[in-house]
Amino acid sequence: MKHLIAGLLIAGCGLAGAAQADSHMSNEDLMKAAKARQATMQLYAFNIGTLGAMAKGEIDYDADAAKAAAGNLVKLSSQNQMAYWPAGSAQGEIEGSRALPALWENMEDAAAKGGALVEAAMAAEAADDLEALRAAMGGLGGACGACHKAYRAPN
Amino acid sequence: MKHLIAGLLIAGCGLAGAAQADSHMSNEDLMKAAKARQATMQLYAFNIGTLGAMAKGEIDYDADAAKAAAGNLVKLSSQNQMAYWPAGSAQGEIEGSRALPALWENMEDAAAKGGALVEAAMAAEAADDLEALRAAMGGLGGACGACHKAYRAPN
Repeated sequence: MKHLIAGLLIAGCGLAGAAQADSHMSNEDLMKAAKARQATMQLYAFNIGTLGAMAKGEIDYDADAAKAAAGNLVKLSSQNQMAYWPAGSAQGEIEGSRALPALWENMEDAAAKGGALVEAAMAAEAADDLEALRAAMGGLGGACGACHKAYRAPN
Repeated sequence: MKHLIAGLLIAGCGLAGAAQADSHMSNEDLMKAAKARQATMQLYAFNIGTLGAMAKGEIDYDADAAKAAAGNLVKLSSQNQMAYWPAGSAQGEIEGSRALPALWENMEDAAAKGGALVEAAMAAEAADDLEALRAAMGGLGGACGACHKAYRAPN
């Protein structure tokens, strides 16, 4: 498991190197990249929303649907997102970005925070009943919040 | 490999059952689901766009970036998309959907077409040089086109 997580951190979430990758990208390409990460966030939110609604009792707990949503989160969070976060796509550099420049100045930390989301998603996928799912929600919320607090501008 | 692909078809792309799952969903929830599949399509397009640009020589071939994009396609296409395609979210049933009602009438075929995309993405991920990547592009384009031709309304 540790090996897998380490692999995901490097191969999957690996953001290190993004900062120096792409000084020649057009504004259009930078915005496409930002939209790719925003689509990823939207899919995180959709799947976490399903899990959260079950955890809160807003919808019935459904083991298959919960496993599906958590499994999707594992796949989405372990994408290699280097191309989604090119240097030059921070807030103030392109339109519609709320990613703070600090993210590109702290790529290792940002990648570690991405890795924490992979781990939290794996824990949610391993949950076999409602109680275990509820216990896993804190990890998911914590992983989202840690990155947003550090690297996302307020709305 | 065959076992893995079969598993992805069932557990990953599995759309069978979506048709009868959700007669009580609100319009808002149906639109959220449609946006989740559209976000997935957007991420397909972003990653296939990278591979296509390399294949056509519009950008330099970069083995790491190609593996990353193809690996992302494997992860994205093997999501469990049941919750993204609820009954009631076809074109004409909600705003902004181009998915034809025929998709819900042919769920097994739609799932098989989704499985073909997983296979094509795996072939692209296995490509180790530009020539192999070029050879894999036909499979990716074919998988996209087969589903769009059958189940997506013209723009």
